[in-house]
Amino acid sequence: MASDAPSTRFIVIGGDAAGMSAAAQASRGRRPVQTTVFEQTEFTSYAACGLPYFVAGLIPDADQLVARSPEQHRANGIDVRTRTRATAIDTERKVVTYHSLDDDRTGEESYDQLLIATGASAIRPNLPGIDAKGVSGIHVIPDAVWLDEILSTRSPARAVVVGGGYIGLEMAEAFALRGLDVTMIEMLDQPMATLDPDMGARVADAIRKLGVDLRLGTAVTSFDADTDGWVRAVATPDGTVDADIVVLGLGGRPNVGLARDAGIPIGPSGAIATDARMSTPVEGVWAAGDCAESHHRITGKPAWVALGTHANKHGRVVGLNVSGTPAEFPGVIGTAITKVGDTEIARTGLSTSEAVAAGFDVVADTIDGSTRAHYYPDPATIAVKTVVERGSGRMLGAQIVGGPESGKRIDALAVAIWNEMTADEFGQTDLAYAPPFSPVWDPTMISARRAATRAD
Amino acid sequence: MASDAPSTRFIVIGGDAAGMSAAAQASRGRRPVQTTVFEQTEFTSYAACGLPYFVAGLIPDADQLVARSPEQHRANGIDVRTRTRATAIDTERKVVTYHSLDDDRTGEESYDQLLIATGASAIRPNLPGIDAKGVSGIHVIPDAVWLDEILSTRSPARAVVVGGGYIGLEMAEAFALRGLDVTMIEMLDQPMATLDPDMGARVADAIRKLGVDLRLGTAVTSFDADTDGWVRAVATPDGTVDADIVVLGLGGRPNVGLARDAGIPIGPSGAIATDARMSTPVEGVWAAGDCAESHHRITGKPAWVALGTHANKHGRVVGLNVSGTPAEFPGVIGTAITKVGDTEIARTGLSTSEAVAAGFDVVADTIDGSTRAHYYPDPATIAVKTVVERGSGRMLGAQIVGGPESGKRIDALAVAIWNEMTADEFGQTDLAYAPPFSPVWDPTMISARRAATRAD
Repeated sequence: MASDAPSTRFIVIGGDAAGMSAAAQASRGRRPVQTTVFEQTEFTSYAACGLPYFVAGLIPDADQLVARSPEQHRANGIDVRTRTRATAIDTERKVVTYHSLDDDRTGEESYDQLLIATGASAIRPNLPGIDAKGVSGIHVIPDAVWLDEILSTRSPARAVVVGGGYIGLEMAEAFALRGLDVTMIEMLDQPMATLDPDMGARVADAIRKLGVDLRLGTAVTSFDADTDGWVRAVATPDGTVDADIVVLGLGGRPNVGLARDAGIPIGPSGAIATDARMSTPVEGVWAAGDCAESHHRITGKPAWVALGTHANKHGRVVGLNVSGTPAEFPGVIGTAITKVGDTEIARTGLSTSEAVAAGFDVVADTIDGSTRAHYYPDPATIAVKTVVERGSGRMLGAQIVGGPESGKRIDALAVAIWNEMTADEFGQTDLAYAPPFSPVWDPTMISARRAATRAD
Repeated sequence: MASDAPSTRFIVIGGDAAGMSAAAQASRGRRPVQTTVFEQTEFTSYAACGLPYFVAGLIPDADQLVARSPEQHRANGIDVRTRTRATAIDTERKVVTYHSLDDDRTGEESYDQLLIATGASAIRPNLPGIDAKGVSGIHVIPDAVWLDEILSTRSPARAVVVGGGYIGLEMAEAFALRGLDVTMIEMLDQPMATLDPDMGARVADAIRKLGVDLRLGTAVTSFDADTDGWVRAVATPDGTVDADIVVLGLGGRPNVGLARDAGIPIGPSGAIATDARMSTPVEGVWAAGDCAESHHRITGKPAWVALGTHANKHGRVVGLNVSGTPAEFPGVIGTAITKVGDTEIARTGLSTSEAVAAGFDVVADTIDGSTRAHYYPDPATIAVKTVVERGSGRMLGAQIVGGPESGKRIDALAVAIWNEMTADEFGQTDLAYAPPFSPVWDPTMISARRAATRAD
């Protein structure tokens, strides 16, 4: 910790989870690091995952979504430049060109180490009328603040949510909680395409139980607007759906333009290629968060999984490496969780179709169980599906759809899959049992045991 | 499945979780098995773990605690003889002597395979006055029915619970829910001796928050009775505590008398010695459930852990072996869970003192975290402690004390410990994150990471 050692000049492009985790970690590392962050918005370290809950009215103030403000980071010695956009990277000269939005000034800054943490953007399909007012994605804090304001001031009665994935589900619930009539339009035959169809059907039931008009296998073809330019309906091949407000929940794409323009390789998943240290192939350039690839531990291939939890871990790994502590990101297995109404939805590893696509021969078993002993008050139903490799019996994936206290059970399955356990062994592990918490055999163990029997 | 193959004559002594799991499993095995069960009560397959919740008034009918009645087992072809006590085992002649309580008849029955599943008994210390009326253990359904009746008919106002372990906690809560003034007397300086002292202190807070008068470091010296023989006070060195009803929660002892008298070896833990197949060293004799030893995966030694979840697993393994499918019980790591009020308490692996006793050099770290993202409504506090081997960084144990949705997080830690993960690796696994379910870094991961840092 020689304080007179020359500082590493560390530039971070993007001041959200990945970028600021890296900056924070680097600032307390073994080697002195002098960090500059370019962030094009006025926010740092905000929780994009919390946006639907703010729109739902569950979080009074959008500022609560900010884990650490630019001022707080600056107090820790990090030079955070908000409303400043990085516009180019010169990897030869090791220079970043930036544009300061407030004073329209352009400048250059040199780096020894550079982290690209530019995040992802919501997909906006090129459909007629998509630029109508009231058709919004929800990706950054201003989106959520705008939606909240519209709900309060314009009092829309009918919301359409396009897409039945995580954001779609959470926004459908948010609108329902705000008292709107909600229609969800999903192109596929099930919501939550990362689940197997039988589990997706359970999610569909939960969505409908919320009062949402769920239209599966339906594509949006255009958006119709009033004379004032505000959306009034969504057109589909099966007719139009009236809409006063529309949210797009069609997933995202990694923001890789800056990296690509600088000649930094993009991987097969479309995100920036990284190794286990989260380094790009270009010397001194790292990538982390929603713009970067992760190693998928089960397929063995690069994967693009945009989640705040990985962004934080990526950033920490980069911050450690940059400040002198070698570190590796051990990869992802695709764990995710959400809820709609009282129904909790979680998955880890590979779904059946993902496993088949990855070349595995699989069997699977879905069981319907209970979250508590049958005699204990208020048990919730829980469905658990375990996907197992035929022959070896190795667990490849698991899915849960159930009532309260169901979803986080996925973690035990995730750790089992992480460790390449067989379903038979997982079915005999020592999980916690007491009547308020579980039947004697936890439903996750029953599912694994059943799948194991089929895998022989 | 040759139905004309000679049936294995399988005798099961004890018709609760272990015995009936074995009988049920054997009845659907590869080889034909003809099973006879001797059970001294009138019940089979009842959930002892549910008894406190019945006394609490949460379960309307004690019959709900019976997972499968003798009639239901008989319908599956199992010859269940209730109110029949096995009185001797002759391992040479392979004969069990039994005594039928209803008709006071004694008989003999031959076996090819014998399972001893005689369970455990509550400890009743030899203290003056312990036989006073109103001083009860709670171990079998009649105990709970009796307590419930006393609460209804005698309307006691003051309950004393002796012992601050699982049963003690659950009974203190039950009495509090029934409106009694409750005093808990525990000899040690903390409740829940299977937790480290700092975590035990959190449990003590939770007990007191329930309104229970918790007296730690206090031994009961005698019980005082009224002239009618009913208990009226509990004496301690610090004075007497008035009591209209007393429950003993002092743990149990394996029922090994029948086995010992038959020359079947008792292991170092005081329970019946078994191998991985749950076989005793005596040919054709198996042991399962609360009377049997388990292999502890971390210490590598035999352990006595009386829990319904292990009893079921033991029984299943014996049933498989007896009916022609080789099976092994993979062992225990000491996972357990309970709650008191809104506070959930869970543990797995070794506590610090257990680890030291087993010869490990350990470090540990306790963190205070949250069950949800900081901005999501109604987060609960959660304390997580991870015990790690110094040097290797291997996780040896974990403990959780926290609000709703805390306890079952122990399962992910249990699977990690089962797989001998290092705390550093667990701290980077892919656990489920969304604002309603967890902060970006699950508190279990934060605790593991911190402990890992100390273990270097």
